[in-house]
Amino acid sequence: MADVLLTSSEYEERVSRLQTGMAVQAVDTLLLTTPADVFYLTGFLTRFWESPARPWFVIVPANNDPIAVIPAIGAELMGNGWLRDIRTWDAPDPIDDGVTLLCDTLLQHVPAAGKIGLPMGLETHLRMPLNDFLRVQEALQDRFFVDATDVVQRVREVKSDAEIALIRDVCAIAGRAFGRVPEIARRGVNVDAVFRGFQGLLLDEGADWVSYLAGGAGPGGYGDVISPAKAAPLSSGDILMLDTGAVKNGYFCDFDRNYSVGPASNAVKRTHEALFDATEHALQNMRPGHTAQQVHEMMYAHLEAAGHTPLGGRLGHGLGITLTEWPSLSAKDQTPLVEGMVLTLEPGVEIAPGRILVHEENLVLRADGAELLSPRAPREMVELPI
Amino acid sequence: MADVLLTSSEYEERVSRLQTGMAVQAVDTLLLTTPADVFYLTGFLTRFWESPARPWFVIVPANNDPIAVIPAIGAELMGNGWLRDIRTWDAPDPIDDGVTLLCDTLLQHVPAAGKIGLPMGLETHLRMPLNDFLRVQEALQDRFFVDATDVVQRVREVKSDAEIALIRDVCAIAGRAFGRVPEIARRGVNVDAVFRGFQGLLLDEGADWVSYLAGGAGPGGYGDVISPAKAAPLSSGDILMLDTGAVKNGYFCDFDRNYSVGPASNAVKRTHEALFDATEHALQNMRPGHTAQQVHEMMYAHLEAAGHTPLGGRLGHGLGITLTEWPSLSAKDQTPLVEGMVLTLEPGVEIAPGRILVHEENLVLRADGAELLSPRAPREMVELPI
Repeated sequence: MADVLLTSSEYEERVSRLQTGMAVQAVDTLLLTTPADVFYLTGFLTRFWESPARPWFVIVPANNDPIAVIPAIGAELMGNGWLRDIRTWDAPDPIDDGVTLLCDTLLQHVPAAGKIGLPMGLETHLRMPLNDFLRVQEALQDRFFVDATDVVQRVREVKSDAEIALIRDVCAIAGRAFGRVPEIARRGVNVDAVFRGFQGLLLDEGADWVSYLAGGAGPGGYGDVISPAKAAPLSSGDILMLDTGAVKNGYFCDFDRNYSVGPASNAVKRTHEALFDATEHALQNMRPGHTAQQVHEMMYAHLEAAGHTPLGGRLGHGLGITLTEWPSLSAKDQTPLVEGMVLTLEPGVEIAPGRILVHEENLVLRADGAELLSPRAPREMVELPI
Repeated sequence: MADVLLTSSEYEERVSRLQTGMAVQAVDTLLLTTPADVFYLTGFLTRFWESPARPWFVIVPANNDPIAVIPAIGAELMGNGWLRDIRTWDAPDPIDDGVTLLCDTLLQHVPAAGKIGLPMGLETHLRMPLNDFLRVQEALQDRFFVDATDVVQRVREVKSDAEIALIRDVCAIAGRAFGRVPEIARRGVNVDAVFRGFQGLLLDEGADWVSYLAGGAGPGGYGDVISPAKAAPLSSGDILMLDTGAVKNGYFCDFDRNYSVGPASNAVKRTHEALFDATEHALQNMRPGHTAQQVHEMMYAHLEAAGHTPLGGRLGHGLGITLTEWPSLSAKDQTPLVEGMVLTLEPGVEIAPGRILVHEENLVLRADGAELLSPRAPREMVELPI
């Protein structure tokens, strides 16, 4: 892993695009606090976010390079990146945990009656103590916080060629690991041992770390797709599903694969093929200009027409520097799809009461349609040895 | 991993202790939103929090069992736990992402002019869109949000016997993995390959997943302790440090080990022994009733007296269901230490300009002093083959 993941010009381009959006909405500066937003602008990549102890801030002025206002423990790593203005305090500080330093920095870049843009909308949160945010609001007096969710999302959702290459790279890693699942999973092996082994395969194939692995196993289908593994053995007729967010250079893949322990029933085979076909239908037909809802409808209607019961909720989503990003391929999301979006297609069906099957691929949307980033799953269910 | 990690009585005891604290502060209900707080009260353990798409809520009324207000995708898993009142909505919803359901639930449990406790202080954040929080505030009209950081922290910081056993278990897993580092690290091996291999060892030894691994490697010391690994080979004379947060059953360990690639210099040997001795000094002398600051001073003064330059910042912290918890063993934190706290001791020194060494152990504080949870590091620096 390089100290600086991408070139400075990649970051300068991101900042420039953000500043264009800020100008449209008359935002004087952006305040960003989450791991993904900070990484996106600075290249600051660390698993230290796992510690909730300290807040981290990046300020994006209207016409200048971003400024990092961060705990001193991050100065060395941030200094290896492209940002030059890095201000630190000794955190955690029970009296003033960066509040004064943040306020001073904001006051330098936001005029009286100016607007500070902060992501406040769907799929965002403010990663700092709420009390401290209220203190910042109070200290800044006549400066105002406004919602900048759109400013950030419209930029981040369009991936550069370099980003697409990184996502393709981690997809390939997961693809190789999925191909080796028969090495670790068979009848009698506990599901939690399979989960441990699969994470090992992902690392062995080159993942930096495995931020997400969920799945399920059950007779003819599984109960849900977000549970950790049980210490229960795989049985003949079980369908095993593994769904991973492996990470390489800070970029995620997010796709799953299904395996039948021994021969699959005809119902399972037909359902898996229907999920493959619904995905294929969307892959062939989705275009920039469609809404997220329209791609949802492509898959949903295809499954219904084939006599299956599609799952509620979303059937895919954005992907990039977090496991899931907007938009949601759901019946309610009218976000227009644009060239350069990286998305998952994730159709699922209820195969029997309380039993589901879910299939997932990753793609980038090009001017003329979808280009796969994940190695395409086989249409036929893979059978594991018993 | 069991569906229900701990007995219902463990959770009932946690709720009862929270409700006692709520009564003291006249809080009518708690609103909790973070992975750790939700897991603590419900046993809901999933890596799905890696997706920022959806908010999750747990309400703790003054006199009733907690209520989960969560996305429908979590209903199956939450239903496997001890909570019976589980309310769901189809998330993400761009128009109303649980806001109405949350408000309705709060209104049932908070009287007019009542107080809703929310963690707003140091080491907390609100894991929901800020816009939606403002909408909840607006909808609840004459009910008020108050800071409940103390209510939650005074309960969570005292670990039960069951929790201590779980942390000891994951510490033992990491201890075995650290013992096998000579299998994967030697001169010429790239540091990123060592990181991948060490995560594989942690999984092989029984970790469910590895939420945190950081470290460093450099001649006679490393530059910082939060960086990911570089694709650069270990050289003779390098000091390799690995610091992990492995997870088993939702509980973390957090300790590190240092290795010299080939023979260590006398300066490195003496420094490692001084870090061991400062840790030992605190292990022998810390007691309930000391403040976090006093234990910081024990290690800091011990290192200074031995002629070393201690690092600034904290020299240890709480540990449990997140990688780091309060208090901070720092010069500024006056939190009183109490029996049942699980803590790290993490003294570090600057061995040369820009070069540091850090040593870390995990312990539980008993009535008569510290009891180690991590297998004690050797006092002598371990030397890897060259």
